[in-house]
Amino acid sequence: MQALVFDAYGTLFDVHSVARRCEALWPGKGAALSAAWRARQLEYTWLRSLMRRYVPFSQVTRDALGWACESLALALDEAKLSALMDEYLKLSLFPDVRESLQKFKGAKRAILSNGSHDMLDPLVAQSGLELDAVLSVDEVKVFKPAPEVYELAVKKLGIPKQEIGFVSSNGWDALGAKSFGFQVFWVNRSGAPLDRLGFAPDRTVASLRELA
Amino acid sequence: MQALVFDAYGTLFDVHSVARRCEALWPGKGAALSAAWRARQLEYTWLRSLMRRYVPFSQVTRDALGWACESLALALDEAKLSALMDEYLKLSLFPDVRESLQKFKGAKRAILSNGSHDMLDPLVAQSGLELDAVLSVDEVKVFKPAPEVYELAVKKLGIPKQEIGFVSSNGWDALGAKSFGFQVFWVNRSGAPLDRLGFAPDRTVASLRELA
Repeated sequence: MQALVFDAYGTLFDVHSVARRCEALWPGKGAALSAAWRARQLEYTWLRSLMRRYVPFSQVTRDALGWACESLALALDEAKLSALMDEYLKLSLFPDVRESLQKFKGAKRAILSNGSHDMLDPLVAQSGLELDAVLSVDEVKVFKPAPEVYELAVKKLGIPKQEIGFVSSNGWDALGAKSFGFQVFWVNRSGAPLDRLGFAPDRTVASLRELA
Repeated sequence: MQALVFDAYGTLFDVHSVARRCEALWPGKGAALSAAWRARQLEYTWLRSLMRRYVPFSQVTRDALGWACESLALALDEAKLSALMDEYLKLSLFPDVRESLQKFKGAKRAILSNGSHDMLDPLVAQSGLELDAVLSVDEVKVFKPAPEVYELAVKKLGIPKQEIGFVSSNGWDALGAKSFGFQVFWVNRSGAPLDRLGFAPDRTVASLRELA
C-alpha cells in the first residue's frame, strides 16, 4: 500500500466537544441538538450533491444548525452560531490517532474530507499532525460518496486506486470508497451495524490502534 | 397550470400503518423501528444515487429494514419481512386526498415517486385513484432529488416545467422540485421547519384540502 487516506470528522477528529458546547448553551438539549445537527448536516451534503447545488461544508454546517435549532425551538443568535462553528476548528484527535499514524510512516498519509479548507486547514494546523496532503471535496464541488471525491485522491497523490488504503469511521463513506475501488478499512468506533449498500469493507476494526 | 404531479409516500398515502404493523410485531419498539427504517430508507436512496449504484426502491426498503432491525437487536425472519413489505402495498390514502383530487380535474394528475412499479402499481390499483400517469424513478435509475427525476415528468406528460405544479409533503423533495423549475406546493402535514437548501416552495399549506 503506497498511501493511506483518512476521513477527518469522526475518524481522526472527535466531534464530541461540539455536543458538549451544545449542552453548555442549552442545558438538557445538547444531545438532541447535536444529533439533529449532525444528521441534517449529512443529509444536506447528499441532497445538495443530488440537486447539483453544491455549497462549501461550512455553509452546509451552518444551515443544518439553523434547521436543528428551529426544530427544537432553540433561539440561535450570531454569538451562539459563532461559538458552535468555532468548536469545529479545535476538535480533539481521538487518543489512538497520533501513535497509529506514526506506525504508517512507510506510506503517504493524507486526509480526504467533506470539510472545506476554511474548516480543515485551521483544524489540522492546531492538531500538529504531519500529513502529505489535506484534500477537500471543495475541489470537485460534490460531496462523498460520489466517486469523483475518491478519484480526487488518486489524481492528487498520483497513486493507483488499488494501492490506496482508505480509512473511515463512517460506514457509508467506507462503502462509497469500496464501490470506487480503494482497499477499505472501516474503523467502527461505535459498533454500528454494516450498512446494506451492496459492498463490504476489506477489514473492520474497532480502533486505529487495532489497524496499526 | 396544465398538470399537477404528486409525490406518493407521505403525500397521498399515509405510511402510518407500517409503524402500526412494526408495533404489532415488536411491542414497545414500533415507533423506534419505523423511524429508523424510514430514515435509513431515504439515506440509502441518496447514498446509492451518489455512488451510482441504483437498485429499485423495493430493494432499498428491504435493505433499510434489515439495518434498522439489526441496530435495535430485533430478529427479522422471512415471514416478518414479508408482512412489513406487504403493508406498503395497501397503505391508506390521507382523508383529504380523494376529495381534493376531484377538484383538480381541469389539469392532468400524475404521481412521480421513488417507488418502483412492483410497489406502486398494486398500491395505486387498490386505492381506486384515477390518474393520468404513475411515474417511477426506476425509468431513470436515480432517486429524488436528482433533476433527472423531475425531468421525467416533463418528458412523459409533454408539458413544460413552468406549467407543472408539484406537490409533496417531503420538504427536501419540494425543494428539489423547485430547484429543477416546477411550481411547488409543500404540504407540510407535520409542521416541520423549512429545510435550508437555498430554495423555498411557492406555497406552503397544511393539507391538500387547503391547496384545493
